[in-house]
Amino acid sequence: MCKACNYTIHGAQHHFGWDNSLPPAERVAPGSTVLFHCLDSSAGQLSARSTVADVAGLDFGRVNPVSGPIFVEGAEPGDALKITIDSFAPSGWGWTANIPGFGLLADQFPTPALTVWTYDAGLAPALFGKTARVPLKPFAGTIGCAPAAPGLHSVVPPRRVGGNLDIRDLAAGTTLYLPVEVAGGLFSVGDTHAAQGDGEVCGTAIESPMDVVLTLDLVKDARLKTPRFTTPGPVTRHLDAAGYEVTTGIGPDLMSGARDAVSAMIDLLCAEHGLAPVEAYMLASTCGDLRISEIVDMPNWVVSFYFPRCVFA
Amino acid sequence: MCKACNYTIHGAQHHFGWDNSLPPAERVAPGSTVLFHCLDSSAGQLSARSTVADVAGLDFGRVNPVSGPIFVEGAEPGDALKITIDSFAPSGWGWTANIPGFGLLADQFPTPALTVWTYDAGLAPALFGKTARVPLKPFAGTIGCAPAAPGLHSVVPPRRVGGNLDIRDLAAGTTLYLPVEVAGGLFSVGDTHAAQGDGEVCGTAIESPMDVVLTLDLVKDARLKTPRFTTPGPVTRHLDAAGYEVTTGIGPDLMSGARDAVSAMIDLLCAEHGLAPVEAYMLASTCGDLRISEIVDMPNWVVSFYFPRCVFA
Repeated sequence: MCKACNYTIHGAQHHFGWDNSLPPAERVAPGSTVLFHCLDSSAGQLSARSTVADVAGLDFGRVNPVSGPIFVEGAEPGDALKITIDSFAPSGWGWTANIPGFGLLADQFPTPALTVWTYDAGLAPALFGKTARVPLKPFAGTIGCAPAAPGLHSVVPPRRVGGNLDIRDLAAGTTLYLPVEVAGGLFSVGDTHAAQGDGEVCGTAIESPMDVVLTLDLVKDARLKTPRFTTPGPVTRHLDAAGYEVTTGIGPDLMSGARDAVSAMIDLLCAEHGLAPVEAYMLASTCGDLRISEIVDMPNWVVSFYFPRCVFA
Repeated sequence: MCKACNYTIHGAQHHFGWDNSLPPAERVAPGSTVLFHCLDSSAGQLSARSTVADVAGLDFGRVNPVSGPIFVEGAEPGDALKITIDSFAPSGWGWTANIPGFGLLADQFPTPALTVWTYDAGLAPALFGKTARVPLKPFAGTIGCAPAAPGLHSVVPPRRVGGNLDIRDLAAGTTLYLPVEVAGGLFSVGDTHAAQGDGEVCGTAIESPMDVVLTLDLVKDARLKTPRFTTPGPVTRHLDAAGYEVTTGIGPDLMSGARDAVSAMIDLLCAEHGLAPVEAYMLASTCGDLRISEIVDMPNWVVSFYFPRCVFA
């Protein structure tokens, strides 16, 4: 329950994919605060009792539901929606999976795998296996407006109107600006994550149903090309106190560099902590960060993968 | 002067490019601590009194000198050099340039530009223009071993043996591991920076001559594919206290995404702080970080550019 909220969008009020012909779940004035009940990204196909067999059986026509859409009165193409991310009420459980065919190293990890997490409401680091503890920072993986192009568009790729951005820092306190392409914006949100590293390298984070409170406002004629956001404070302090182990990939292609850096980290985590490779891959996806260290020293760029040492401290 | 140092490599003991036939400047036992006097990356062609005309006249045959090489006794191909980065003694001045043909947005910035910085020994944030203050964190941009391939190799691209890595977190306290490809490793260091953001987007950082103290050790038969490093603590606390302004690039190519994100940040800095575009570009290169927010939501990836708000706080 959100005492300051003007509206509540219930979990049943979700849709799969983006389509600007969908009827709004609600019409709100700019400045309204809305509580969204968000399903997990499997739309309930996975639960706290799921096993790896359930990953193999996932119906991909029913993944990544988003709650909405919200018609913001007065929003027109060329405006920006200003979204103040107020708070998250996490559910206390989540899952991370290696889904065949999906993820940065899909070719190296063809077999499904599943980790089910439980975590407490105080957001203490969540236990992975017997010794790793992943710091939590809830955020919305998918947050966006409907695109102008007619028809149904897959929810998987993000677009300039937002969507499946999977930006770890779209957390409480952040203000996000999204380009509006259709009247009312037709805003939806979902795919809540309890924790994720930059890159979301295995393709999933700690996928976790959650309630989200957002305030939706309008910047007229903002002429924004792509999403932007402002964080009021630090973004990695939940991770950085003990420093990082860092691996690198070096070469003329950023994608290959990212793959090499993550592969090297999986090797390191397996050697130092006795993890199976797919465990290291899933763990890294929940807390490791991909950074572009240099992108100018022709013809070779450096991509670095930062794994927080606090996880095994 | 370094009282704990076993050797000193003077600024005159530098070379341009990597070549495993260069005679060592020194032969040292594993565990030796060495003081390196490092020239700036223009090898003295630019000074605190330089103007933009000097950028246009740079001799690219004499850029990015590295001090060395050091032959580490017992180092053989397959080993790793373990480099403990002990300390930096910055010189108090530096430069940042837009060099035509070089940098992430070289097509958009064809005209040379130069900023000369002065900073104090206590490393207080350095003034840029009238209002911006860039937090400093000295590190070595170029740090590496000689490649196995014979002949002279350009210093510009980094390789698996290191070199022009331009990794912002190769700062005091970090331990770096580099693959060894030739007997003795033939280690050199230079290209010292007083500050740089991840990406080094305009192609230069705060380029600044500096003394560097490193301890060189050996890990036998490490079989390292690419460089890796360990930081003992946080890496962005000099930047993050006031949070970040973040712009994004979204699409199927990470390079285009990085370019879009940086272009959007230049637009934002110009609009909000009245900078000229090339000023914003150079400033962003010294403190803005490129991160890969997601690399799995086919076919569109998200690259984000984080500009620290403390710079204008």
